[in-house]
Amino acid sequence: MRIAIDAMGGDHAPGLIVQGALEAAAEWPDTELLLVGDKVAIEPLLKGSLPTNVKIIHAEEVIGPDDEPVRAVRRKKGASMVVAGQLVKDKQADAMLSAGNTGALMATGLLIVGRMDGIERPALAPMMPTMDDIGVLALDLGANMDAKPEHLLQYAIMGSIYRSKVHGIKEPRVGLLNVGTEAKKGTETAKAAFDLLEQAPINFIGNVEARDVLNRNCDVLICDGFAGNIMLKAMEGTAGTIFSMLKEAFGSSVLTKIAAAIMLPKLKQLKKKMDYKEHGGAPLLGLNGLVVKCHGSSDVIAVKNAVRQARIALQGNLIDSISAEINGK
Amino acid sequence: MRIAIDAMGGDHAPGLIVQGALEAAAEWPDTELLLVGDKVAIEPLLKGSLPTNVKIIHAEEVIGPDDEPVRAVRRKKGASMVVAGQLVKDKQADAMLSAGNTGALMATGLLIVGRMDGIERPALAPMMPTMDDIGVLALDLGANMDAKPEHLLQYAIMGSIYRSKVHGIKEPRVGLLNVGTEAKKGTETAKAAFDLLEQAPINFIGNVEARDVLNRNCDVLICDGFAGNIMLKAMEGTAGTIFSMLKEAFGSSVLTKIAAAIMLPKLKQLKKKMDYKEHGGAPLLGLNGLVVKCHGSSDVIAVKNAVRQARIALQGNLIDSISAEINGK
Repeated sequence: MRIAIDAMGGDHAPGLIVQGALEAAAEWPDTELLLVGDKVAIEPLLKGSLPTNVKIIHAEEVIGPDDEPVRAVRRKKGASMVVAGQLVKDKQADAMLSAGNTGALMATGLLIVGRMDGIERPALAPMMPTMDDIGVLALDLGANMDAKPEHLLQYAIMGSIYRSKVHGIKEPRVGLLNVGTEAKKGTETAKAAFDLLEQAPINFIGNVEARDVLNRNCDVLICDGFAGNIMLKAMEGTAGTIFSMLKEAFGSSVLTKIAAAIMLPKLKQLKKKMDYKEHGGAPLLGLNGLVVKCHGSSDVIAVKNAVRQARIALQGNLIDSISAEINGK
Repeated sequence: MRIAIDAMGGDHAPGLIVQGALEAAAEWPDTELLLVGDKVAIEPLLKGSLPTNVKIIHAEEVIGPDDEPVRAVRRKKGASMVVAGQLVKDKQADAMLSAGNTGALMATGLLIVGRMDGIERPALAPMMPTMDDIGVLALDLGANMDAKPEHLLQYAIMGSIYRSKVHGIKEPRVGLLNVGTEAKKGTETAKAAFDLLEQAPINFIGNVEARDVLNRNCDVLICDGFAGNIMLKAMEGTAGTIFSMLKEAFGSSVLTKIAAAIMLPKLKQLKKKMDYKEHGGAPLLGLNGLVVKCHGSSDVIAVKNAVRQARIALQGNLIDSISAEINGK
């Protein structure tokens, strides 16, 4: 199998992206990695030798974090991210990974790789952190703001197949993000989605609340991109604020500094648990190929984990399985 | 001025509700308090004497926490909450407070007290906690799930007047809850609301994110009841989970228990900051009278605070001010 990696996207590109790719290439000799980016920037990072399962695909341009997504993808045909997407489109690669501009990657997915037949809206599906470190796959978390009930149904089917194929969960529990756990709650969209999900070939467990996500109240959390993004940011903001208040409290006297020294390892562990960046790449589901968004701060381990994840998805025929379920084949 | 108090609603009713009312009556002799509820339950709590500015209005029935809101309000005409609402409707009281069933109180507001002319949807407007203890008024937090842009505009006008009249904030900063701070973000509803808010006679500061609410990024936070509720529950859930993980971490060894003893006062303070129940009653704005929802766990101080809050609102002619702004008078 062949995986295209956008070598120029992310805070640590191309250095740590290339290094991560080289380590992945060493670990999985059966996988061909296509490093897409500026030859002049990439070659010095290879330390003189190119493994047989790594190729460089030259791309002159780069889409930056501040580029307007759709315009950038339309105009910069030579950008590393767009070239990687084109490789997937042309079946020269089975999957692509990028730690670059999220909006531009979604545009690359839609405009270059293309929507899967039968799918109305692709969805971005990151893992939300949970206290037991297993995580919840949440979708959509920002690809589409206005979701119809039918879109939420498709998210549920795609998310369910992903968790089963990639994470080996049998009959993943699918929950609908809502304002209460009873049926007949929420917006008209949520109520209509509830009815559709009850009829779907998934293990639908009903409405779930944002307050219980950290306790892994489901395996797949279905939401529209607007409410989902607000939930995620409310969680991030609350955790960040509490940790910074704790830091202040621990630093306030000699005694509290002693307490801080005692608690430091536990606090670090807790902080790490809350960090959704720890949970690997987020697939963009509903495209004609596998596209994985890696976090902007991705390092060597993150790139390697994303390659591992893409390999499992490809081995499990993720895309064909989704297509078969959506199109009833 | 006269304030009706639902003596039978809330976890600590009638005991602490009545006690809170008595203390409020002693503090503000110019305010008449109407204790609405079961005479037989209330009278023994008065310790033999009824202050001249307290009256008991007998009500035979009670709406419980598990009653279906609309049905309960329609059928239990003799319930303390409904009778208190009727007093406001009949101009026998200027305001009503209740710590009872939230849904039933919203139904009482709509069906008994009545919607203000020109208002399409009343809104529930609690204070969200902020780290500086000042708080953000958020509306709507659950009265209406499907908000149109025009509803969000009315929330903004009502919330802005409330913070100015009740909290003395000049030109309160109004923010629209969204997935990014730039303009043109979010759902079609959010985009249309943004345009309306820009034209409104308020201090609109643009889109704000859920992650910054704890840092008081605005004074009035505008959201639909669905996203707002999800934001609030995500914040509550995250804070609750972190505190319970901290408790576990602090209890894990003799050393960490020493650290816990040192940190206890600071942690309690921090936990209190995050507790939105600390922030008094939530007005239901957009009705033909003042209706205040007190938290279910309201105690003596909470009831007294709610009376204080209602007095200030009444002194500032809150309802007439909102009506004048909405109806352009």
